[in-house]
Amino acid sequence: MYKVKVLIKRRQSILDPQGKAAEQGAKLLGYNNIKEVRIDKQVEFVIDVLDEQAAEIEAKEFCSKLLSNPIMEDFEFSLVKINGN
Amino acid sequence: MYKVKVLIKRRQSILDPQGKAAEQGAKLLGYNNIKEVRIDKQVEFVIDVLDEQAAEIEAKEFCSKLLSNPIMEDFEFSLVKINGN
Repeated sequence: MYKVKVLIKRRQSILDPQGKAAEQGAKLLGYNNIKEVRIDKQVEFVIDVLDEQAAEIEAKEFCSKLLSNPIMEDFEFSLVKINGN
Repeated sequence: MYKVKVLIKRRQSILDPQGKAAEQGAKLLGYNNIKEVRIDKQVEFVIDVLDEQAAEIEAKEFCSKLLSNPIMEDFEFSLVKINGN
């Protein structure tokens, strides 16, 4: 069994409207020093397989086919063995 | 100037519908070993102040008033000095 942690980020060149909205909200609240806000996704899940390579392949496919948008996002992930399996 | 990295997570006891949807999507694609999917937010921003304590206070207020929902989310953040200021 493996615990997988994925970070999915929009490419730097692509506008992040959610981040922009948060930045404008900060300005409205009087926080004028806050800049360059980017909001990304962090996904955690468990893969219930014994073989590390199989887990890695499944995690990678799940990230690229379902979690991330390959047109404008990049992802990186790490696997950690859990439960002694 | 400080670079701030925030991780905003729903409390474990609160259902994460986005994660559940991704998990069901995985099953539909044939990835039956993927479980306990949780999708959280990672926010990065820059605070343009010199004083570390002031930066920390501003970051904390920004997180609690705007970025996170105090009813069902927890956040943690870290500050790193950048640009030699």
